[in-house]
Amino acid sequence: MFNAEIKSEPFRNTIEVLSVLVQEAKIKLAPHGISSIAVDPANIAMVSLALAKDAFDSFEATDGEIGIDLVKLNRIMEMAGKDDVIKLDLDENAHKLDIQMHGLAYTMALLDPSSIRKEPKVPILDLPAHIVIRGDDFKRAVKAADKVGDYINIGVKGDTFFMEANGDTDEVQMELTKDQLIDITPGDAKSMFSLNYLQDVSKTAGKVDQITLDVGKDYPMNIKFAFAEGHGQAVYMLAPRVDSGP
Amino acid sequence: MFNAEIKSEPFRNTIEVLSVLVQEAKIKLAPHGISSIAVDPANIAMVSLALAKDAFDSFEATDGEIGIDLVKLNRIMEMAGKDDVIKLDLDENAHKLDIQMHGLAYTMALLDPSSIRKEPKVPILDLPAHIVIRGDDFKRAVKAADKVGDYINIGVKGDTFFMEANGDTDEVQMELTKDQLIDITPGDAKSMFSLNYLQDVSKTAGKVDQITLDVGKDYPMNIKFAFAEGHGQAVYMLAPRVDSGP
Amino acid sequence: MFNAEIKSEPFRNTIEVLSVLVQEAKIKLAPHGISSIAVDPANIAMVSLALAKDAFDSFEATDGEIGIDLVKLNRIMEMAGKDDVIKLDLDENAHKLDIQMHGLAYTMALLDPSSIRKEPKVPILDLPAHIVIRGDDFKRAVKAADKVGDYINIGVKGDTFFMEANGDTDEVQMELTKDQLIDITPGDAKSMFSLNYLQDVSKTAGKVDQITLDVGKDYPMNIKFAFAEGHGQAVYMLAPRVDSGP
Repeated sequence: MFNAEIKSEPFRNTIEVLSVLVQEAKIKLAPHGISSIAVDPANIAMVSLALAKDAFDSFEATDGEIGIDLVKLNRIMEMAGKDDVIKLDLDENAHKLDIQMHGLAYTMALLDPSSIRKEPKVPILDLPAHIVIRGDDFKRAVKAADKVGDYINIGVKGDTFFMEANGDTDEVQMELTKDQLIDITPGDAKSMFSLNYLQDVSKTAGKVDQITLDVGKDYPMNIKFAFAEGHGQAVYMLAPRVDSGP
Repeated sequence: MFNAEIKSEPFRNTIEVLSVLVQEAKIKLAPHGISSIAVDPANIAMVSLALAKDAFDSFEATDGEIGIDLVKLNRIMEMAGKDDVIKLDLDENAHKLDIQMHGLAYTMALLDPSSIRKEPKVPILDLPAHIVIRGDDFKRAVKAADKVGDYINIGVKGDTFFMEANGDTDEVQMELTKDQLIDITPGDAKSMFSLNYLQDVSKTAGKVDQITLDVGKDYPMNIKFAFAEGHGQAVYMLAPRVDSGP
Repeated sequence: MFNAEIKSEPFRNTIEVLSVLVQEAKIKLAPHGISSIAVDPANIAMVSLALAKDAFDSFEATDGEIGIDLVKLNRIMEMAGKDDVIKLDLDENAHKLDIQMHGLAYTMALLDPSSIRKEPKVPILDLPAHIVIRGDDFKRAVKAADKVGDYINIGVKGDTFFMEANGDTDEVQMELTKDQLIDITPGDAKSMFSLNYLQDVSKTAGKVDQITLDVGKDYPMNIKFAFAEGHGQAVYMLAPRVDSGP
């Protein structure tokens, strides 16, 4: 059983957190809220999302799992105004989700959850450096790096956060000192990541006030942020590109 | 003989009413105003347009007919500012239309009216249900339906207006009760239409305050509205798609 | 030696003046400012640009020449905010230009100036008619002409400036009398130009308050304007298309 009401903005953000990486997702339903774990087809990026009951105007659910076509749901959500309330109602027998908004009643067929790629276990990483940075600074760094190359190095030097990108002929560096960041826990950290994935992630992470980066040495990076007035939590984990070197 | 002055906005709207269906049109000139009837190449949609003398700042015409390349005229009208007055002057000998606006003087060759598809007789339909609806509600219904399918059912149930679309797996319904409409005359009405055509028509119909729909059972639908401060009248007639059924 | 600081807006305008014609440019450095002459690949249009020392917030240079990939520099400049100050520093040994802006440090490889097309001598033309016109009037004339044809005639009749374009079937004329212009020195002038090139030039010339046109009879046209608060000067010279005629 699942029926709930939520404002269009946090619901749209929830869908977007997943849909920058995947087109279909398994959503777990539980009395305390909904959650999802998804991995992009190339196994480079993973996202773990949780949206608590309190993010909703009303919420009732028993434990369950549904498969959602995010592309379709995004198309439907284009009809919602900024202040519209979205009513969601699961029709378990018909395997359909009823979605109502401002005079419109959609019925969307659900996907068979077993047809969607199995979510992996979320590895628990002990990453030495932690940086709390404004979302738009992060987005700017990613955009700046994309002007010269395909990869970005992200790390910490002393108590300064840096990112740098090296193209065939050109380079860019961005440094943010302790007082230009919201917070930093220094540590031995420098890893290289694909800008393709970081650009996707920065579409959602770039909108929020603050994000936390957990970084290590040639290790995956966590990109964490809250949304939906603190009732939603997104954690992206991005695999590093390890230089084979000479 | 035809020479006239008109503000750019009503003139642009007049061209648009025709150009959502056709690229070339025959315009009838008469002392009381101009008019046109055009049918789209696939014979699915027809538009009948009339713009009275009073829509113009000045107007002089004798009975006649001219052929207009709407694509070219649209391109020229992109040069007109919102408050520009457009001066039109027919050069009958040269088969050209002189178009002046804010320092620019265009001379546009006319088409031979006999080369343009002959307009059909406008059938007079006795349709049982009449709905007066806000233009943007109509546009929203068409847009909402397009999210799930290619066709839309439009009709009346009791004194409620409804539209519904059924895709392969998903559905949408929109209902507007009597007090959500400007007016309704109930009647036995439900017909299916191609969304392709309704999207074209809603480009113009969606901009006006109110439009009238005349609907029957598996019958064509009329979509009527006034523009140019009431001095212009547009009537689209759209053929239904009749389900062949099993 | 070259190191300088300049606000992003005049620097962006400087790059744009060149990049509407070419993708790579040789920039001359001198103690009093920078300059460049570039010719488009088809030899139809030439631009001569000078930006004086006073356009910069700080400026130090010895005589020299550098080769710039304008496409790359444009991409980098997309990162600059409107009020950002751009710091430029030439690394002569590495053949690189360091570009700093608001927390970002780019290093851009320079091109070998000898690999860039040699700039021609700027011909000194004695053109009889001179028109000082607002940039947006010039841009509008070019845009209006493009609605009907590929070429535009530009000239002077009495003390009226005119442009006219003739397509296969349609025509447009624009006339600006003495009091609609900023200034005019009448003279025997009428030349035909390719709209392709004029559209490129009007991207930059259309933005400034006033431009000066020097026009002759079947002769090249000069299009001159100042920018960067008067410290920058751009002169485009455009070859005419001479009608072979019957």
